[in-house]
Amino acid sequence: MSDSPVHVDIRDVSLRDGLQIEAPIPLSAKLDLLGAVAATGVREMEATAFVSPSKVPALADAAELAAELHRFPGIEFSALVASPNGARRAIAAGLRSIEYVVSAADGHSRANVGRSSADAAALIPEIVAIAHDGDVAVEVIVATAWDCPFDGPTPPHRVVDIVTAAVDAGADRLAIADTIGTTTPRRVTELVALVRPRVGDLPLGAHFHNTRGAGLASAYAAVQAGVTRLDASIGGLGGCPFAPGASGNIATEDLVYLLRDCGVDVDVDLDAAVAAARVAQDAVGHDLPSALLRSGDRKRD
Amino acid sequence: MSDSPVHVDIRDVSLRDGLQIEAPIPLSAKLDLLGAVAATGVREMEATAFVSPSKVPALADAAELAAELHRFPGIEFSALVASPNGARRAIAAGLRSIEYVVSAADGHSRANVGRSSADAAALIPEIVAIAHDGDVAVEVIVATAWDCPFDGPTPPHRVVDIVTAAVDAGADRLAIADTIGTTTPRRVTELVALVRPRVGDLPLGAHFHNTRGAGLASAYAAVQAGVTRLDASIGGLGGCPFAPGASGNIATEDLVYLLRDCGVDVDVDLDAAVAAARVAQDAVGHDLPSALLRSGDRKRD
Repeated sequence: MSDSPVHVDIRDVSLRDGLQIEAPIPLSAKLDLLGAVAATGVREMEATAFVSPSKVPALADAAELAAELHRFPGIEFSALVASPNGARRAIAAGLRSIEYVVSAADGHSRANVGRSSADAAALIPEIVAIAHDGDVAVEVIVATAWDCPFDGPTPPHRVVDIVTAAVDAGADRLAIADTIGTTTPRRVTELVALVRPRVGDLPLGAHFHNTRGAGLASAYAAVQAGVTRLDASIGGLGGCPFAPGASGNIATEDLVYLLRDCGVDVDVDLDAAVAAARVAQDAVGHDLPSALLRSGDRKRD
Repeated sequence: MSDSPVHVDIRDVSLRDGLQIEAPIPLSAKLDLLGAVAATGVREMEATAFVSPSKVPALADAAELAAELHRFPGIEFSALVASPNGARRAIAAGLRSIEYVVSAADGHSRANVGRSSADAAALIPEIVAIAHDGDVAVEVIVATAWDCPFDGPTPPHRVVDIVTAAVDAGADRLAIADTIGTTTPRRVTELVALVRPRVGDLPLGAHFHNTRGAGLASAYAAVQAGVTRLDASIGGLGGCPFAPGASGNIATEDLVYLLRDCGVDVDVDLDAAVAAARVAQDAVGHDLPSALLRSGDRKRD
């Protein structure tokens, strides 16, 4: 791992990406899960999204949840937004960090936010300005960075263009997302190699789903290619393992197991993450795809 | 992938490692599964094991199955053995290729075959002689090559010693096995680097389970390190996803998906492998952990 950083920041996205396709759960259950995840030592969490409550009913309590985040000092909470209005709502609710997601593919962009990829990218400067006016950090996440469920493979130059626009607009952080869980190590290596020079000294993250089993292999390839931030969700929340085609994020505890044994330093404690996965499984009421939740850690010296 | 071969031989182990902990299924169901796997284009299959029928009742029909293998020309079938007597039985049943498994860890070796690792390794020359006297190929598989469920981490020099003994004894092929699914890419890279010089020009394979989610990442690391043969099972057969700690082999179809998109040539057709996974799921009567079985292939150009 000649190009690997010593430390990788794991952002737990259980509360947002993990829960967004689940049936809504009570705020109290979310706070229990949040507490269990916070106990892992994780430094960053994506808490919710300020999007249409009718499109994502599981996150309709975004403002109510945001009002409780002060209970968990020491964690940087962020919220996903998909429009200037969402950014204003997140900041009004007290968030100090937002993520603006731009799909690199038109098909997904139109299905997700009702506008083309170019129109979504054109909003980056406005959203950065809204965030920075409120002294709030903003990350631009390029969704469907490898593949779109409607359009097929995403041209890499499209991802590079959006990243470049975000850097030019003053975004504080960048990330590339394998939204539908299709990528594999070589494609990760290739895209990171294209994107990294455009990012300069800004932190670059990556976001993987395990839909085709290659999520952890892709995450490790990203780390080897110089990515220093990875999203993951406790238990692999984010999709029902019994729903055709649906699949969760890479599981935080599985990622921690792999990275730690590959000599990468992370803030998340493995045993606490497995304990949090049990809380998550109880919260959603069905089995989660996490491997460590079933196997436990290996016997060590 | 500077050190990667263009082609990787996938050996499907569904019929042996995949079925051995399942409740026994009828020979006719095994032959149906075998036919579905054969239709994928795979060139090698581990068909069964000649071991104690009381310890592995699911494989008690080894000789009966062996008698049917002539129906599938063009596939090289092998059988696992754990003793000279097992080797003789496999050869008498018509197998032209056997695998002798030696656990590198005493704890697993005693639990598995009732003798120490050193005693099991000491049998290699006798088993090679039995095989070669019958003009049968023999592979030595080093089990628990990274970790033992009883002893913890396996000293790498122990693996190197067994590989060296096998090469000296005239084994035709070597493999290292992550029997309990604990290894991760860096440990794979390190062990392959130690083993490869001892193997010379002989084919070197690796065998992974997905117990802690890192099976595919480890398999890819093995390919990058120069391994040219990988075991996998259709559907990820090899363990019930609902049994704590139990987990299957890496799924053939998930491996094919990853390798193909990483530019590695394989003989197995992805769609046929997914179809075979459906047959496997029906045969065992419960959900299998395969990702591709649920997600299907990605949309391509």
